Amino acid sequence: MDQLKPRPANSCPLTPLGFLERAATVYADSNSIIYNSTTYTWSQTYRRCLQLASSIVSLGIKPGNVVSVLAPNIPAMYELHFAVPMSGAILNSINTRLDARTISILLRHSEAKLVFVDHFSRSLVLEALSLFPQESQYPILAFINTDAETASPAADLDYESLIEKGDAEFKWIQPQNEWTPIVLNYTSGTTSSPKGVVHSHRGEFIVALDSLIEWSVPKQPVYLWTLPMFHANGWTYTWGMAAVGGTNVCLRKFDAAIIYSEIRRHGVTHMCGAPVVLNMLANIPNPEPLPHPIHILTAGAPPPAAVLLRTESLGFIVAHGYGLTETGGLIVTCSWKHKWNTFPASQRAKLKARQGVRVIGLAEMDVVDSESGLSVKRDGLSLGEVVLRGACIMLGYLKDPVGTEKCMKNGWFYTGDVGVMHPDGYLEIKDRSKDVIISGVRI
Amino acid sequence: MDQLKPRPANSCPLTPLGFLERAATVYADSNSIIYNSTTYTWSQTYRRCLQLASSIVSLGIKPGNVVSVLAPNIPAMYELHFAVPMSGAILNSINTRLDARTISILLRHSEAKLVFVDHFSRSLVLEALSLFPQESQYPILAFINTDAETASPAADLDYESLIEKGDAEFKWIQPQNEWTPIVLNYTSGTTSSPKGVVHSHRGEFIVALDSLIEWSVPKQPVYLWTLPMFHANGWTYTWGMAAVGGTNVCLRKFDAAIIYSEIRRHGVTHMCGAPVVLNMLANIPNPEPLPHPIHILTAGAPPPAAVLLRTESLGFIVAHGYGLTETGGLIVTCSWKHKWNTFPASQRAKLKARQGVRVIGLAEMDVVDSESGLSVKRDGLSLGEVVLRGACIMLGYLKDPVGTEKCMKNGWFYTGDVGVMHPDGYLEIKDRSKDVIISGVRI
Repeated sequence: MDQLKPRPANSCPLTPLGFLERAATVYADSNSIIYNSTTYTWSQTYRRCLQLASSIVSLGIKPGNVVSVLAPNIPAMYELHFAVPMSGAILNSINTRLDARTISILLRHSEAKLVFVDHFSRSLVLEALSLFPQESQYPILAFINTDAETASPAADLDYESLIEKGDAEFKWIQPQNEWTPIVLNYTSGTTSSPKGVVHSHRGEFIVALDSLIEWSVPKQPVYLWTLPMFHANGWTYTWGMAAVGGTNVCLRKFDAAIIYSEIRRHGVTHMCGAPVVLNMLANIPNPEPLPHPIHILTAGAPPPAAVLLRTESLGFIVAHGYGLTETGGLIVTCSWKHKWNTFPASQRAKLKARQGVRVIGLAEMDVVDSESGLSVKRDGLSLGEVVLRGACIMLGYLKDPVGTEKCMKNGWFYTGDVGVMHPDGYLEIKDRSKDVIISGVRI
Repeated sequence: MDQLKPRPANSCPLTPLGFLERAATVYADSNSIIYNSTTYTWSQTYRRCLQLASSIVSLGIKPGNVVSVLAPNIPAMYELHFAVPMSGAILNSINTRLDARTISILLRHSEAKLVFVDHFSRSLVLEALSLFPQESQYPILAFINTDAETASPAADLDYESLIEKGDAEFKWIQPQNEWTPIVLNYTSGTTSSPKGVVHSHRGEFIVALDSLIEWSVPKQPVYLWTLPMFHANGWTYTWGMAAVGGTNVCLRKFDAAIIYSEIRRHGVTHMCGAPVVLNMLANIPNPEPLPHPIHILTAGAPPPAAVLLRTESLGFIVAHGYGLTETGGLIVTCSWKHKWNTFPASQRAKLKARQGVRVIGLAEMDVVDSESGLSVKRDGLSLGEVVLRGACIMLGYLKDPVGTEKCMKNGWFYTGDVGVMHPDGYLEIKDRSKDVIISGVRI
């Protein structure tokens, strides 16, 4: 048996980038992206991403360089999730709600060589650059002019021009190995010591597959982008939608009326969002019945019972999970048991508020005493720190070996979150202590 | 970035064995296995597998030893898919239709240390052992006495006794790394030079996840075991059912009447089988309408149009794929496009007969000239050899470095199958040349 070692034919790196090439074959003529009056097919999206990746390389970006993006959920943001790593670079999507000072800190910390900027964030990013120390290395800026009326000054690098000039026959750059970084996500933008979470191609591949299985995502769903893609890459559904040939319905911003309108207009089947999105949906006056059941996945904080019940009574099917930027996506989910459907509504809400059990790609989860590392009692009462181990755990924090060592010890990732383990093995978080919670959503 | 290397928290081996532990938490009280009047829950199955694994270790079986099994689709066969690798050993399930001479060859080739034998195969395996050369090392035999009336001689090791004596608190043996072998499957038992395909924990983990996504398997399906588990481990749905908490409906043998009866009795939702199974279902006289749509996945040979149309008209939803023992499961599937539903029946059948496109866990697929290694034209006419590359490709053939080298070259696995590539990127096999086809099913 000892002769049987990995070989080139079976050890090529796991990466979510291959999902796109496949989607261009299987779902060639099907919609990949819908945004206002713009529609792309999967073969177009593949072609555009190859062109963009080739242009990124032409700009002098080298494998391992960081390419940042500051944009809401527009088609470019989706495309960049493939095009940037296809150029060999590492994608760093920045929370668009941060201020210029913080963005300036993140751009310097990541040493971003190129930044894609939505035209509405133009002044914000220019202000951020103005805060760089003199004689700094400045990144190249490329502006995304989604809406025709807002053409940027002629001197600017323009997103669509980069695509047009790009080579559609470009051979995308395979990661050197599956541990090669694919994304850099900052967990907290409000302190002066940002934490840059780095994930590998392998990690995102596994969590993307897991997220599809755990939510039982069918082929060709219609996915409404109510979760910002800059939050942990949309919990990996950016790549996941290519894996199942879904339609990405993009939105620059939204409210309840827009969501209901998009659901009807495009036949939306799936969406993700913080409990604030559920709240928005639940509080609409005089709701019309939904045309079909809509799957909604929430995380960040447990959905309050009243919101949950009302959302479900409107016809949404709510799933609840838990994840951190450090885990790539939701890696603990409140996996639902058939028999719970027979329970009274209040008990169902209580059960659904629990974070749940590990997904199949996470090797282990436990709640331990932070000092001793020993498991707490599975009694639903004993508090401890949530620890995780598995393929989806980040490589580490960028330029922060001390911070990385601190949370990665004894073969576990220490989340900093405080929770209890119920007798049935379901986790419930009691306190999310480690980081700043942004907009009620930590991930 | 270079400091960011794999660490124990994120590099624990990928293995399908963890699916069972999780199922015991999430689906504790739900049915795992149904066989005649026997029913187990997932917590029972987990406990029984731990007990069995500990007993296997007690018998002196060491990590890396081969443990064979000769049994039809009975509960023990399902349990052994977890218990054997949980003991650190490598599972080798043997086609029950082989003759004593061939079984003798396989047992000697694999150097099996322990063989689990269904009581109906008792005389077969004893005959196989009698064909061993004198002074051979004989494996330990353990008999599975599923049906109470056929108790084996008191001197025999008995499957249920091994479980009873086992330790339910046993800490199952993690693979040393994810490339550690988990299974050994012989592709051809009818020649004197058997080919023993060895797969790693990593490979089976990836193809199991992929097989769930590609077939859009929901949570808690009811799965009827019409495909022998000895055929490439039931195309990985052995492990896959634990991942989604499905119910495994086991059958010792079956015909159309039994299948229809089990469908109604247990609410079967999913089943796999060679085209011969479809044929069996299609040819039933005076069929009653199905109580609900049943998903059936077929492979081995393309389903003939008439059989396909009749099966679908009865209410079955037929999916078609392609795989080899060397690929672990079906790694090319005829991924269906919504728009094809509008095509005339004959054209639909023609499209469905194609093998299709790679699954997302397979990195690449091509049809090449066997000599030059260059891609053939994508014209649906130019013949070439099907080559594959990805995580699901076997580690190699046991004790056959020459055979392994021969099919693993230029970073590809050469399947030996002859096919064409259609202009839309879908593969169609024209000749399966390399190996003996067993019962119309190669995999």
